Amino acid sequence: MASVDRSLIIIGGKEDRTSDKVILGEVARRVGSGKLVVSTVAMENDPGQLFDEYEKAFRSLGVKHIFKLEINHRDEAKSNAKLRILDDARAVFFTGGDQMKITSQIGDTPIFQRLQQIYREGGVIAGTSAGASVMSETMLVVGGDEESHVIGGSARMAPGLGLISGVIIDQHFMERGRVGRLLGAVAQNPKNLGIGIDEETAIVVERDNEFYVLGSGAVYVIDGSDVTYSNIAEADLKKTLSIYDVKIHMLSEGDRFDLINRAPRQMKGAAAEKLPQKEDAHKKVA
Amino acid sequence: MASVDRSLIIIGGKEDRTSDKVILGEVARRVGSGKLVVSTVAMENDPGQLFDEYEKAFRSLGVKHIFKLEINHRDEAKSNAKLRILDDARAVFFTGGDQMKITSQIGDTPIFQRLQQIYREGGVIAGTSAGASVMSETMLVVGGDEESHVIGGSARMAPGLGLISGVIIDQHFMERGRVGRLLGAVAQNPKNLGIGIDEETAIVVERDNEFYVLGSGAVYVIDGSDVTYSNIAEADLKKTLSIYDVKIHMLSEGDRFDLINRAPRQMKGAAAEKLPQKEDAHKKVA
Repeated sequence: MASVDRSLIIIGGKEDRTSDKVILGEVARRVGSGKLVVSTVAMENDPGQLFDEYEKAFRSLGVKHIFKLEINHRDEAKSNAKLRILDDARAVFFTGGDQMKITSQIGDTPIFQRLQQIYREGGVIAGTSAGASVMSETMLVVGGDEESHVIGGSARMAPGLGLISGVIIDQHFMERGRVGRLLGAVAQNPKNLGIGIDEETAIVVERDNEFYVLGSGAVYVIDGSDVTYSNIAEADLKKTLSIYDVKIHMLSEGDRFDLINRAPRQMKGAAAEKLPQKEDAHKKVA
Repeated sequence: MASVDRSLIIIGGKEDRTSDKVILGEVARRVGSGKLVVSTVAMENDPGQLFDEYEKAFRSLGVKHIFKLEINHRDEAKSNAKLRILDDARAVFFTGGDQMKITSQIGDTPIFQRLQQIYREGGVIAGTSAGASVMSETMLVVGGDEESHVIGGSARMAPGLGLISGVIIDQHFMERGRVGRLLGAVAQNPKNLGIGIDEETAIVVERDNEFYVLGSGAVYVIDGSDVTYSNIAEADLKKTLSIYDVKIHMLSEGDRFDLINRAPRQMKGAAAEKLPQKEDAHKKVA
């Protein structure tokens, strides 16, 4: 039963932490009276300040049990003291920073196994920015902002935490001009759906097979299933990518996406009622 | 017969003017021994320097007859002296600047009628940046960089020169993060194909019905023919756009696009032979 409830909340960065807090509010709602662990593992030299911001935000949203998971060396990810922070956690929230720091510090450690267990048993795993990218099997790491994909281009990929498969997540998407790099990632293997998430925007993945959109920006889904031609395997690394017949869906709050059938649809009825209500903006689609 | 040869060379901005000059070289090739007029109408206060740069570049490419068309007030666009600059022109090249300056100064004037005549009778009309946007019936003017389209968003459209119909051109495309605004433009009326051109990249439109790609970046074609849903007509102007099932083609040098059937294809045989050859980069697709 519990596993039916598990969810991923994948945030494109710069989510509001002081005003409406629509996205963090959804995390808080799912934590309920449970325990929330905020991981700052993605940060190079954790100054503490970021955790304090999140703690304040989540407290104001009614979360009572908030703990910090800070890991500066891979050794720590194997210590019992750190592992115990995750005991009975209902949710884990990954802050921004460097996604490679998350995977290199906790990949294949007891901490990571506990994280998987929390999710499997019905928990919530949330992450923003670097914490969003890290969710998929393969993650985009650096490079490729504001440029079209060149076959031997600057965008790099690395293995992520793999909490969701069959997708590649990108964040700060339109703000940092990342369509080119995500198209390049999809071209490399169209089995992966590209999901580009704007700032102050999130997808909430339920039952591993569908998500809905929350927040003020857009979510772009890049589907290479019907691609008829691409030059991605060409030897000339300086050649700019060509790829024909890519399907793209632009989604905003009120939209759902079926990851199995790769099809968007509008939220209606009871599901739509659950979306946050604001005074003027973001009226839900009827 | 002459009309078969007419062509538009539409450049995404920042084309090389001092080194390989691949794109300006194509303009020069089509000018041949004819007369080339460089229009600086798009510039607010023409400092002369930009014309000098183009004159130098085109001279080095073998163009012998180069004239400057500068118009600072709409009155001048009605003067015979200015009109005579276009006499017997084989090609007109529009520099960058402000696209609205071009349309507001020469729209519906004798200069514009002469421009149409030059094109109709087999001439070449080229333009870069603002000079590219201005080619279509409807042009994107300002706003919408690096953001997702919001229904009442900041991107603005205005009537262009209309030398090519059924398309909306955007330039500096991936460099300025303009996918959002072009998706928004296509959503407003999918009869228009969105064409986003990167810097140092051009499309060469032949016989009004197809184009090929030249230069080092990419050209994106956004086709809304199969769109199944969009919220663009919603009353809530702050709502972020949703649009499902958009088709996108990413093209690079060596690709052709059929504007009638909205279909890309690779250039082969004699056509591909005509592409510029470079030592290592940009080897043509065999």
